[in-house]
Amino acid sequence: MSNKAGLEGVVVADVQTSLVNGVEGKLIYAGYSIEDLAENALFEEVFFLLHNVRLPNAEELEAIRSQIAKQASVPQEILDMMKSLPKETPGMAVIRTATSMLSAYDPDAENLTDKDVAREKAARLTGQLTTISAAWVRISKGQEPIAPREDLNLAENFVYMMSGEGPDKTASEAVNVYLVLLAEHGMNASTFASRVITATGSDMHSAVVGAIGALKGPSHGGANAEAMRMFMEIGEPENVKPWFKEHIKEGERRIMGIGHRVYKALDPRAAVMKLHAERLAESSGNTKWYKIAESLAEEALGDDYFIERKLFPNVDYYSAIVLSTLDLSIDMFTPLFAMSRIAGWTANIVDQMGGRLIRPTANYVGPMDLKWTPVEER
Amino acid sequence: MSNKAGLEGVVVADVQTSLVNGVEGKLIYAGYSIEDLAENALFEEVFFLLHNVRLPNAEELEAIRSQIAKQASVPQEILDMMKSLPKETPGMAVIRTATSMLSAYDPDAENLTDKDVAREKAARLTGQLTTISAAWVRISKGQEPIAPREDLNLAENFVYMMSGEGPDKTASEAVNVYLVLLAEHGMNASTFASRVITATGSDMHSAVVGAIGALKGPSHGGANAEAMRMFMEIGEPENVKPWFKEHIKEGERRIMGIGHRVYKALDPRAAVMKLHAERLAESSGNTKWYKIAESLAEEALGDDYFIERKLFPNVDYYSAIVLSTLDLSIDMFTPLFAMSRIAGWTANIVDQMGGRLIRPTANYVGPMDLKWTPVEER
Repeated sequence: MSNKAGLEGVVVADVQTSLVNGVEGKLIYAGYSIEDLAENALFEEVFFLLHNVRLPNAEELEAIRSQIAKQASVPQEILDMMKSLPKETPGMAVIRTATSMLSAYDPDAENLTDKDVAREKAARLTGQLTTISAAWVRISKGQEPIAPREDLNLAENFVYMMSGEGPDKTASEAVNVYLVLLAEHGMNASTFASRVITATGSDMHSAVVGAIGALKGPSHGGANAEAMRMFMEIGEPENVKPWFKEHIKEGERRIMGIGHRVYKALDPRAAVMKLHAERLAESSGNTKWYKIAESLAEEALGDDYFIERKLFPNVDYYSAIVLSTLDLSIDMFTPLFAMSRIAGWTANIVDQMGGRLIRPTANYVGPMDLKWTPVEER
Repeated sequence: MSNKAGLEGVVVADVQTSLVNGVEGKLIYAGYSIEDLAENALFEEVFFLLHNVRLPNAEELEAIRSQIAKQASVPQEILDMMKSLPKETPGMAVIRTATSMLSAYDPDAENLTDKDVAREKAARLTGQLTTISAAWVRISKGQEPIAPREDLNLAENFVYMMSGEGPDKTASEAVNVYLVLLAEHGMNASTFASRVITATGSDMHSAVVGAIGALKGPSHGGANAEAMRMFMEIGEPENVKPWFKEHIKEGERRIMGIGHRVYKALDPRAAVMKLHAERLAESSGNTKWYKIAESLAEEALGDDYFIERKLFPNVDYYSAIVLSTLDLSIDMFTPLFAMSRIAGWTANIVDQMGGRLIRPTANYVGPMDLKWTPVEER
């Protein structure tokens, strides 16, 4: 038996949500290129697209926006639980716990089979996850959380609930682009985790909670935070060259946010994110992080090791720069990723419902034919 | 590309924890047969065995028992959160949320790389999950939870914390056998979910929380509760024959707790569990459920459909009978499964740490080459 530890190239589902072409560096959501959607679409439009495999008309778009916004509030018990947590609790642990707790108050939590009900639940959870994330931004700073507004779109609502003001147009648009770019990405590890959980017949909250846990890992969604920590460690643009030299010398060639399991060409999301990072850096006047990122990317792209292995900056690399302009703590970078990816998770969960149990096998290499003996005789 | 939707036969890891031989109906944990361990071993011994691939000596056994018992208490904030939940919240949703919340108070929650620290965390989590489960038995009935005792083993502690008395010897021994039998089972869906999450570099709490979510499904750990609901629907031993006839007539041949993805022979755990179910039924004087189960199994084993497909009663089928003698609500059956399987989950998590990202692929069958248009034009 050959051991497929990483399951590379093993097809686990037919999907209509997204196509990742790692060789050419292309990503499409249900027929539309990621560049096209990032330029034009609202996150709610993408949510509808992933769940319905077509874009909404004007009426449908307003309906889904309103459906998400009107159900985005979370029960007081959940905010109380969040307030009881140590302030230094990682944001991902907070949203994982709060999302899990949400099921106790969801009227459809235990409806495990109806796909229409599941789509409604997905819209509700998507709004609530944004409310929880914005609430933790405030609670972790000792501020009172702010309830969502029914008239805003999700990106605007996040900026509003986080700041209590505006919402600021530039910030909202940056969040929207971020949410569109990260919403779905083939059979990534967190989406796959949500499918494995759903395939046992379990509920959507369980599947999303598992996906949040998977996204938290530094080899997955946690990479945007790790990239930012690296930029901060470098500190100044002029430190890039010596930092890179030292980093290479130590034999540690792994750079957070450079290289991707699937892309052996430029990550198409990275190209879009880079544009926005540059634009936001210029409009905010804080160009330091962008300059560091640009300079470090140049070093890596000029180094044989990275060239031979086709290691390019990925979406996490430049998204760290975009998120840093939003006055977010690094700890909240990955929760923002979750706020976006929940669109893809839930579309995949609904697709997986009623499907076959996902149960691979293991190759036993342990001892055989032993006989239990009383503990005194060991 | 062939679509391996269920990943049947796909090997994802070399393991030393367990070997499931579905054709011959054999299960061994690190060299020891399940029959041998169920007859002789303490759950803590099995925990040690799964984590160390050998049985503990007397000193080591007392050390792990004490390590689990002494760290089994949970912070008041978690009990407060549980008290704030609606009393009808499913037990699995409660233990999923409480386990997630535990990470905020675990000093090693964010240590993602040290395997020795991970093994200590596994012992702590194993004790705490039992405390949480027993606490919910009481809180859901409006009673105050009871703190764990440092001098008891895990099965005794559960019976003590649930009842506030004893612990009763017969009940503790039944719980211990149950915990031993369910502790580990190859690359089952919840264990696989925990490995997918761990492989992103994420933390143990995230992986266990994801595993709880997977176990919750009726095609996995939820099956013991479904089997009991079926026995209760049948109601009396004399109803079995007409119920079976009606069930078959309706074209629905699926019987909860009969048949297993891997076993095409008798589930060896079922044979052991059946013995204990019979023993407990007789000693408690309540033989009704055992008689219903026995009679229904006879019907199924005599029916061509079940014979041809090699569908035998599995471990969930008879464990429903064992658990029903413990004065547990059906809702707590699957949490008890989690209290046991966490031994296997954590052994697999530690084994997976530092391993390769598990990321399969999807076969895109959706639309291509579409172009975004303004919403008014759709």
